Amino acid sequence: MPLQPLERLEKRLQYRFQQPNLLRQAMTHRSSGHLNNERLEFLGDSILGFVVSDLLYHHYPEVTEGDLSRLRARLVRGESLAEIARELDFGDALLLGQGEMKSGGHRRDSILADSVEAVIGAIYLDGGFKSCEQWLQQLMKPRMEALPPVAQLKDPKTRLQEWLQARKQPVPHYEVERIEGEGHLQSFTVSCSINEPKMVVQGQGRSRRKAEQEAAMRAIEKLESAKLESKK
Amino acid sequence: MPLQPLERLEKRLQYRFQQPNLLRQAMTHRSSGHLNNERLEFLGDSILGFVVSDLLYHHYPEVTEGDLSRLRARLVRGESLAEIARELDFGDALLLGQGEMKSGGHRRDSILADSVEAVIGAIYLDGGFKSCEQWLQQLMKPRMEALPPVAQLKDPKTRLQEWLQARKQPVPHYEVERIEGEGHLQSFTVSCSINEPKMVVQGQGRSRRKAEQEAAMRAIEKLESAKLESKK
Repeated sequence: MPLQPLERLEKRLQYRFQQPNLLRQAMTHRSSGHLNNERLEFLGDSILGFVVSDLLYHHYPEVTEGDLSRLRARLVRGESLAEIARELDFGDALLLGQGEMKSGGHRRDSILADSVEAVIGAIYLDGGFKSCEQWLQQLMKPRMEALPPVAQLKDPKTRLQEWLQARKQPVPHYEVERIEGEGHLQSFTVSCSINEPKMVVQGQGRSRRKAEQEAAMRAIEKLESAKLESKK
Repeated sequence: MPLQPLERLEKRLQYRFQQPNLLRQAMTHRSSGHLNNERLEFLGDSILGFVVSDLLYHHYPEVTEGDLSRLRARLVRGESLAEIARELDFGDALLLGQGEMKSGGHRRDSILADSVEAVIGAIYLDGGFKSCEQWLQQLMKPRMEALPPVAQLKDPKTRLQEWLQARKQPVPHYEVERIEGEGHLQSFTVSCSINEPKMVVQGQGRSRRKAEQEAAMRAIEKLESAKLESKK
C-alpha cells in the first residue's frame, strides 16, 4: 500500500511521531479547519528562537549581541524557513482550504514558513524539549555554518558609517543628484561624499534608499582597495 | 562577615550558582566593563520567550495565537521585567560605570530589565535548561495567573471594532472635533459615531490617538450597559 503524504513527510523529517495527529495539525492551515496550526506555530517559533540563539551564542564566542541578533534574524526569517519547507517537500503534505489550494498556497513562502514553525511545536509536544532540541540542531547547524561572515550582514550604509566612526572621521553625506522616469519606473542617482579620504561616489536604484545603499557599497569597495594599496 | 551584594542577590534569587562569575557578568552593565551582560541578555531573552510561550500555551488551551502573543508581550515587556528586578532588589547588585551610577542607572527600567534577562541566561549556562526552566516557571507562573482577562488586553478601538464586526455592523467613524492649546499641551476632542445602535460619544486626550481610544472606551461602556438593560 502506498504511503500517505503525512507518513512520507515523517520519513523526510526523520522524526517518528508518537502522536501522528500532532503532525496532521501542524500541517493544517487555518483555511482548512478549526484545529489548525496557528497555536503550534506560536510555540514552535519561540523554541526555534531559543535553540538558534543558543547555537549562535556558543558558535560565535566573540560576537556582540547586535550581531548575534542579525545572525539569528537570517536563520529564522520567513524566507529561510520556507526554503527548509521546500527542501523537505512540505507542500506535498499541507492541508489547505479550497481557496488557498487553487491560488497555490502550498507554494507560498508565508504558509510554508508557518508550517515549519508548527512542526517544531508539534515535535516539542510529542517528544519533549530534548528531542526537539536535537532535531532542530541537526536542521539548523549546517545552515548556521553556511552563514556569511558577520561583517557582511550589515547593510552597506551602516558598514560605511561604522568604518568611518572607528577612524574618528565624520559621517558620509548623501544627496539625490537626479530622478529619472516616473511612478514605479523611477530611477534615483545619489552621491555619497566622504571627507577623509576625500571621495565622491554615485549609486543608482529604484528608490532613494537603494541608491544610497549602492553608493555606500561602492565607497566601501574603494576604501578597502585603497587600504590594500597602502599596505603593499 | 557581612555578605557581598552578589551573594545577597543570590539568596533573593533562590538560586545557588556553581559559577558565581556568571552572576557577576549578568549584573555587569556595558558601562562598567568589557565582560558585560549583553550577550547573556541575548540568550536569556530567547529562553524567557520560550518558557513563557510554553506556560501560556498550556494555561490557555482555547486562546488564539494572536491573543497568546499579546499575553506574552505583557509578561516579557521591559516594564514587567523591571518590576521583577525591583522586587528582587537588583539595583543593589548592579555593576555600573561611573557615569551611569551618577545618573541613577540602577533605577532605570531598561538597565533593570536587561539584567533580568542576563540573569536568566546566566542560570541557563550555569545549571542547564531544566533548572533554568523550573526557576523561570516559579518566577513567571504567579505573574501569568495575575494577567487580566484576554479580552481586556486589546486596545478599546480594536475591541469596539471586533464587537461591531461580530454583529455584522459597519465600523465606527472617528472625527476630530476640536484641538485646543498648543505644542505638547494640545488637547484633542474626537467623536466616535456608530450606526447601529445609533450613538455618538466623545473622547479627549493629549493626542488624536489617545482621544480616539478614550471615545472607543466610552462607546464600549455604553454598548455593554445597553446590552445589560435589554436583558433585564
